[in-house]
Amino acid sequence: MFDPVEKLKEYIRHPSISTDSTARDGMKGARDFVSGLLASMGFAVEVVPTALHPVIYAHRDGDETWPHVIIYGHYDVQPADPVKLWSTPPFEPQERDGRLYGRGSADNKGPLMVHIAAVARLLEREPGLPLRITFVVEGEEEMGSPSFGAFLEQYRDRLKKADFVFLSDTGSPRADQVVITCGLRGLVLFDLVVTGARTDLHSGLHGGVLRNPIQALAEVCASLHTPDGRVNVPGFYDDVLGVEDWERAELAKLGQGEEDYREFLGIPAFHTAKGFTPFEATRFMPTLEFNGIGGGYQGEGTKTVIPSKAFAKISCRLVANQDPEKIRAQIYQAIHDRMPKDVAYELIDQHDAVPYVVVPPDRPNTPADQSPVLANAFRATDKAVAGVFGVPPLYLREGGSIPIIADIKRVLGLDSVLLGLFLPEDNLHAPNESFHLGVMEKGIRACERVLESVARGGK
Amino acid sequence: MFDPVEKLKEYIRHPSISTDSTARDGMKGARDFVSGLLASMGFAVEVVPTALHPVIYAHRDGDETWPHVIIYGHYDVQPADPVKLWSTPPFEPQERDGRLYGRGSADNKGPLMVHIAAVARLLEREPGLPLRITFVVEGEEEMGSPSFGAFLEQYRDRLKKADFVFLSDTGSPRADQVVITCGLRGLVLFDLVVTGARTDLHSGLHGGVLRNPIQALAEVCASLHTPDGRVNVPGFYDDVLGVEDWERAELAKLGQGEEDYREFLGIPAFHTAKGFTPFEATRFMPTLEFNGIGGGYQGEGTKTVIPSKAFAKISCRLVANQDPEKIRAQIYQAIHDRMPKDVAYELIDQHDAVPYVVVPPDRPNTPADQSPVLANAFRATDKAVAGVFGVPPLYLREGGSIPIIADIKRVLGLDSVLLGLFLPEDNLHAPNESFHLGVMEKGIRACERVLESVARGGK
Repeated sequence: MFDPVEKLKEYIRHPSISTDSTARDGMKGARDFVSGLLASMGFAVEVVPTALHPVIYAHRDGDETWPHVIIYGHYDVQPADPVKLWSTPPFEPQERDGRLYGRGSADNKGPLMVHIAAVARLLEREPGLPLRITFVVEGEEEMGSPSFGAFLEQYRDRLKKADFVFLSDTGSPRADQVVITCGLRGLVLFDLVVTGARTDLHSGLHGGVLRNPIQALAEVCASLHTPDGRVNVPGFYDDVLGVEDWERAELAKLGQGEEDYREFLGIPAFHTAKGFTPFEATRFMPTLEFNGIGGGYQGEGTKTVIPSKAFAKISCRLVANQDPEKIRAQIYQAIHDRMPKDVAYELIDQHDAVPYVVVPPDRPNTPADQSPVLANAFRATDKAVAGVFGVPPLYLREGGSIPIIADIKRVLGLDSVLLGLFLPEDNLHAPNESFHLGVMEKGIRACERVLESVARGGK
Repeated sequence: MFDPVEKLKEYIRHPSISTDSTARDGMKGARDFVSGLLASMGFAVEVVPTALHPVIYAHRDGDETWPHVIIYGHYDVQPADPVKLWSTPPFEPQERDGRLYGRGSADNKGPLMVHIAAVARLLEREPGLPLRITFVVEGEEEMGSPSFGAFLEQYRDRLKKADFVFLSDTGSPRADQVVITCGLRGLVLFDLVVTGARTDLHSGLHGGVLRNPIQALAEVCASLHTPDGRVNVPGFYDDVLGVEDWERAELAKLGQGEEDYREFLGIPAFHTAKGFTPFEATRFMPTLEFNGIGGGYQGEGTKTVIPSKAFAKISCRLVANQDPEKIRAQIYQAIHDRMPKDVAYELIDQHDAVPYVVVPPDRPNTPADQSPVLANAFRATDKAVAGVFGVPPLYLREGGSIPIIADIKRVLGLDSVLLGLFLPEDNLHAPNESFHLGVMEKGIRACERVLESVARGGK
């Protein structure tokens, strides 16, 4: 009998930190664990080498008339720093108060285990289930999935005939309210580097003759927003799709209070694009954010230099139907036009842009041009969540970006069903990460129903 | 016979880095060296403890009718980092091409040795010279002279009856053109810290609901200058004294080319306050500079956070008659008025403000309300420089700030004669610092003549 909590504990014990080159054993341990588990369930397992961490590709084949689902997950986790803030060691899983604590418990080892357990139980009960299942479990998600696109290209012919992708790497607001994520924001990232003099200068000897690069940078950065909270780049909003009424209505059902949110953030006041509540703004509106800024002397006390260089790290979250490369060009043009001519500057693209994602769930008031299997999957998920959790799911866009969802759509043409299983209090990427064991068990039961229903529905 | 070059080599060998707590031996070595040298010349030497590095106080007393000169210097030096950029080890002095290389050779061990050697030669020739001389050599100049004000207060009664201060801790443009510095800019320093949310936030989950503190900081920083290169703070220029015609004329004699200066800085174009050439702007106009800026993620690649905090390190160079505390209050008020209300901010004073300094040399077209001894000292210096270097000195304000000059004026009421002995190519505070041995020898002869002339002039 498959015990998912014990299996998850075993899985968490492998410190699979993809960004830590000293954690190779942990990576291999986690990879071997997942490979072994899937092999023991009858899957044909391949460990596919990439430039860095291999992808686990495990398939249960079958008749071509059977529906085919790809289940995605990742076996790598975030670093555990700062370790001293953990109540129990990050890689020694512990159960407390209905939660399992440990690095990766919620992101993404627990949710992946939900899917594995659902498949295991289903196949235990019905070994001849008419469903083709392919697990794709990568090891570079916490690094931005740099090898995943190449993997998809390599396995394109074997994967593209699948019907849809099923995964849980998104969140839900409460243990009793599951969210089906139906949109993700895209992402464009770049650095802006401004150079003044050849070297840092003494601000007494030379102060007054040149424009300080920090000043030029501040002038340009300040120009990128309007006072009413919008991005001040010509054309930036041209392609932004309006928000549908049902989306606002669905969001209203979330029942979160703005005042609670403001206090959680610890800010004196919100600052959103005009006409949007905070909850709407993160989901429906694009942003331009300064992720970092640096230049000159940053230590204790003072050093009276005029720095040679200053830089800002900038990123935009994009919504449908903004094209990342078009947006990038618009911003670069605005920066070019506004940069004072008495400094030099450079714009440096940071990794590949991520397109926005729209997953059209099968709802009466959205276009339903999807395949029968996908439509059936959405219906089954809606029903399974309502049945197991007692409350129907909410269909919400999310403010974050998941590059692999866009990659899957681009390379394979497949849509994804995104079942949110982690909660705000799960502390993803933070000390004392945990996974809610009630959500875990209900998630397994819901996934089991979804997969069974997809299998019964046929092609 | 006193050999100043050999003595200077011996002096440089002590790595007296005041900011390096592991360099205590070097500090003590340099202090003992200067104390011993002055004692051997017949001075009564006291080593005056301070909170950190003692001050050497050495006096040659005499009849109250004798003029009394204080000679200032500092025995501490800058760190030698990066050591690998030095052609020869920083604390192993080497003569090459008429220069002596080594950390501190020009700042300030060489120039102080000029004064010591001048006194030594003078007293060798005329042991009964009717001149009271007090050396004050501190060990915290490269740290901003934090203990010097307290030392002056402690020794006030013994020092305030002196007639003037004579020192060389300023520069001249060329080996054949000495500058008497007749003005220094003041200095106000502070940090501006802007806080948004309680912690760094995920820019996907929360992007769009709050003002990024980097954005607020950029907006306020960008507001602090006008497009025509002036500081945009109400009242900032109210007390700025106009430039006298003779000052512009004197500066024109410098004969430096703007194009050479622009190429030296490596900037596409100058950016000065309207109506001022670059050479005028650094001397006659106040500035507001960003010495550093920081916030959020500054490493390789990307991290899509909305940072909790961002800060700028800001300083102003001030000219006559700007009051540092009035200027500070004006800037703080402007920042307060302009800071968006949806972020929090803090202004942190950085060490005591430095007032501007005006040293009125005894020139026909400047007010000559100075004492006969000081007036004589200025005349003697003018004549000695013209005689020894072959070209009369230029009387120029300098863009930098020397806190101790303002302290001496404030606490003791004394003016300083500032004889510039280091050159632009001496690499102060940089690798391969050196001192021009031709300037050294001429400087000794000029100082000798000045001191002799002051002694002859009587009270």
